Amino acid sequence: MIWVMSLGTALAEFRQFEMTIEEVEIEVAPGFKSKVWAYNGQVPGPLLHVKEGDEVEVTLINNTTLNHTIHWHGTFQTGTWQMDGVPNITQKAVEPGESFVYRFTADKPGSLWYHCHVNVPEHVALRGMWGAMIVDPKEPTALEKEVTKEAVLMFTGWNSDVAMTYGKGGHPSEKMDYFSINGRSFPFTQPLKVKEGDVLRLRLFGAGMTVAFHLHGHDMLVTHKDGLPLDSPYWADVIDVPSGARIDAIVRMNNPGLWINHDHIDHHVSNSGKAPGGAVMIVEYEGVEKPDWYVWKDKSYEPDFYMSESLKKAYGLHDIESFKGQQEQPAGRKKKKRKKPASAE
Amino acid sequence: MIWVMSLGTALAEFRQFEMTIEEVEIEVAPGFKSKVWAYNGQVPGPLLHVKEGDEVEVTLINNTTLNHTIHWHGTFQTGTWQMDGVPNITQKAVEPGESFVYRFTADKPGSLWYHCHVNVPEHVALRGMWGAMIVDPKEPTALEKEVTKEAVLMFTGWNSDVAMTYGKGGHPSEKMDYFSINGRSFPFTQPLKVKEGDVLRLRLFGAGMTVAFHLHGHDMLVTHKDGLPLDSPYWADVIDVPSGARIDAIVRMNNPGLWINHDHIDHHVSNSGKAPGGAVMIVEYEGVEKPDWYVWKDKSYEPDFYMSESLKKAYGLHDIESFKGQQEQPAGRKKKKRKKPASAE
Amino acid sequence: MIWVMSLGTALAEFRQFEMTIEEVEIEVAPGFKSKVWAYNGQVPGPLLHVKEGDEVEVTLINNTTLNHTIHWHGTFQTGTWQMDGVPNITQKAVEPGESFVYRFTADKPGSLWYHCHVNVPEHVALRGMWGAMIVDPKEPTALEKEVTKEAVLMFTGWNSDVAMTYGKGGHPSEKMDYFSINGRSFPFTQPLKVKEGDVLRLRLFGAGMTVAFHLHGHDMLVTHKDGLPLDSPYWADVIDVPSGARIDAIVRMNNPGLWINHDHIDHHVSNSGKAPGGAVMIVEYEGVEKPDWYVWKDKSYEPDFYMSESLKKAYGLHDIESFKGQQEQPAGRKKKKRKKPASAE
Repeated sequence: MIWVMSLGTALAEFRQFEMTIEEVEIEVAPGFKSKVWAYNGQVPGPLLHVKEGDEVEVTLINNTTLNHTIHWHGTFQTGTWQMDGVPNITQKAVEPGESFVYRFTADKPGSLWYHCHVNVPEHVALRGMWGAMIVDPKEPTALEKEVTKEAVLMFTGWNSDVAMTYGKGGHPSEKMDYFSINGRSFPFTQPLKVKEGDVLRLRLFGAGMTVAFHLHGHDMLVTHKDGLPLDSPYWADVIDVPSGARIDAIVRMNNPGLWINHDHIDHHVSNSGKAPGGAVMIVEYEGVEKPDWYVWKDKSYEPDFYMSESLKKAYGLHDIESFKGQQEQPAGRKKKKRKKPASAE
Repeated sequence: MIWVMSLGTALAEFRQFEMTIEEVEIEVAPGFKSKVWAYNGQVPGPLLHVKEGDEVEVTLINNTTLNHTIHWHGTFQTGTWQMDGVPNITQKAVEPGESFVYRFTADKPGSLWYHCHVNVPEHVALRGMWGAMIVDPKEPTALEKEVTKEAVLMFTGWNSDVAMTYGKGGHPSEKMDYFSINGRSFPFTQPLKVKEGDVLRLRLFGAGMTVAFHLHGHDMLVTHKDGLPLDSPYWADVIDVPSGARIDAIVRMNNPGLWINHDHIDHHVSNSGKAPGGAVMIVEYEGVEKPDWYVWKDKSYEPDFYMSESLKKAYGLHDIESFKGQQEQPAGRKKKKRKKPASAE
Repeated sequence: MIWVMSLGTALAEFRQFEMTIEEVEIEVAPGFKSKVWAYNGQVPGPLLHVKEGDEVEVTLINNTTLNHTIHWHGTFQTGTWQMDGVPNITQKAVEPGESFVYRFTADKPGSLWYHCHVNVPEHVALRGMWGAMIVDPKEPTALEKEVTKEAVLMFTGWNSDVAMTYGKGGHPSEKMDYFSINGRSFPFTQPLKVKEGDVLRLRLFGAGMTVAFHLHGHDMLVTHKDGLPLDSPYWADVIDVPSGARIDAIVRMNNPGLWINHDHIDHHVSNSGKAPGGAVMIVEYEGVEKPDWYVWKDKSYEPDFYMSESLKKAYGLHDIESFKGQQEQPAGRKKKKRKKPASAE
């Protein structure tokens, strides 16, 4: 293949990463675990954060027992269609124990994502094979520059019937019975902590299901669709996020309180039929006193659950410890040593 | 709690209401009844119609056997987050026989709604715990001022398996088999009567399901999302109304005839699998002669089914008689006397 | 009825067609056939292509064993509401062996469609009773004039349980298990062949299901909703197409490769639970060398599968041979002779 540089390289960096796929289990909700194929052992996969125009190289190492790929959803792959990650169309799938080197230019900015393109109804919808790819634009909008707090919310569902059996699931006749944000169902989600005056950017991902996201106490200005700014942003208190799409919204945090936020597709706020659960979280303003009966009165706080901390770091591929699953290393398979991911700027 | 006046009070009114929750049954479709928890004994709940900036106080009295609340969906609750109606986050749920006083400023205009926030997949999606809250804006758009006819359409589904058993339902594995507008399925819906030259405002509510609303014979100009005007309205003949969202559309009634209107999610136009049924109604122009075989040739007409009449009344909380259910008063419970709701202007 | 000419007739043509409905079988996916009621014996029905303002007359002949109609979805039917095709509202349904003459002005331009309005959850959602009606606008937009390649994609689902039994299906409790573009599931769909520099217009139809259409390698500019241009077009890589709606998008084909395109509602890319299948196709650029392992290496090519060729023909009603089903002529019924459809300009 000939490598085509399709964007100005003066400021572009060459960024080189490794990503494995591991067979692990995650605890999605109280009492509910699912086997997943996890990029770098975590669900969501590690945050890939680069700048528009960067050259990206990712060596994918398949440490699982079935075939996989990575599709870089949103990236144009200008001149590099063979890097698009679709089995039997742009490449042969990466077999167990094998690896594949993806190399491409981050030629589209915004809220992108990556996911496997093998047997999508199981691998993507039920097995956690997705992560966020945030490509900072060369020319951010004026409003983007005001943002003080970032949050990535990736929505998916789960099927407890097939959760523990690889190779099952992804059928139209199955019913999803757990629903999650970043792979965890309420109350295993986390508070999104803000302070008055914050300008919050929500990056909403329909990773494995369609969502109607409702934020209490604030309107959201919908500014971006699938990574690109809208000419005509609009206000909403319920945002429709179609499966596969990404919607960015800006919220001015001017109303201190404790505010629930949730998918408004009603049965998505339950765990196996018990509410509240599912795709629910709470925005907590700094300084608001929590009542004694507050559901998350004694919640242990994980500040990077919405990738807010990782997005402040230098560009790179960022593992997030709390997303890691429990390794269920197949007997007899030697795990390859993982290099520390490169990180620059 | 300290009461914060967040909007100019020069023209604002203080409006005080009581609302009960009753255990009643409604007949959704021919041969299909469902037990509901009904605000003021009706589904939809009473129309709450106020002006932007008004102070609203609602005393909620729970005359049922389970816990409930009211969430004022869309209202910012600026400075009054404890009035947001979410159990274990902003308040403790209102227990059977207990009451709770909500007090807040109507700080966001437009097509808002209210609903219970306890066990949402059952209470909201299956038990009719929702009503319209229309907040007239201080500064209506030019097009809004042209409106001659208002119609509120709230869409939900029902599950006949659990319809008669409180505490059941709201599970992902259940199937909705009835679909309704304002709590009734065709042919129990009503004609929307208009005359040539009318400027019709449709207020579409995804109260308990996602809808693809199709009006025959006219395009609809989509003007508002979740209460607020769009900078860039657009034409549609099918409007996507995500669960929880509200879409306002303006239609110039310039094409006399008898026009069916329905959810275009195909199985939503059936009653337990029999079509036509479900989320279907008919726009009837004044003066159009109805054929002998017309399905609603001898239909008994209820002019307030789309709240068109109540919306012409003075601001207040308006019960609508035809929405009332049959009281199934639990043995041994004494019903509290309901005061006549205040109504002003 | 009095015929009302509602648009300038100086350039308008009167176009007269016949359309039958036949009971045939189509092979939707490998190993999966469904009985359909097929307009002119094909699914999708024949392409109806006219110009805004044309007078259209279609004589519908029902050669099947159950009642049907045609609703001209999107057409305003200004002054001709009795031509709207809704049984027991605008007409009596057309019985087996009977015919009905529809006559109306093509008073709304754009991506319209037609479909039966009898027992919609079965006839439309499961039995293929729909086709495209493209009405060229009198005043196309500047961008429309640049288009070099047209493609019509109509999305529906299927239920294998009832596929072979007319009168069954369309129930909320059934599960669709096959998903299709223009009535065929991958790998029975076709490549969409383009060349670098093409300006592609995608006309996406939610004929029988809601779709989240994803094109790889390109952004799509969403330009039209339900036939009419948006004031504020927007970019997307996933386009939400609600059931019943039509979305037009323009794509500049500037990125040679082999690109998969598919519904991003994950289980829609499977055939009875096996992926890849369902609503999937591939854009193939001219001159791109196909690898030996390419899934469609030896694909037999049908250039009119997306109606690209028929849309280049003179205005008229265009049968497409590859959409024809296998005739299952009911014993004892004499098929009426079909006239060659009129075609002009």
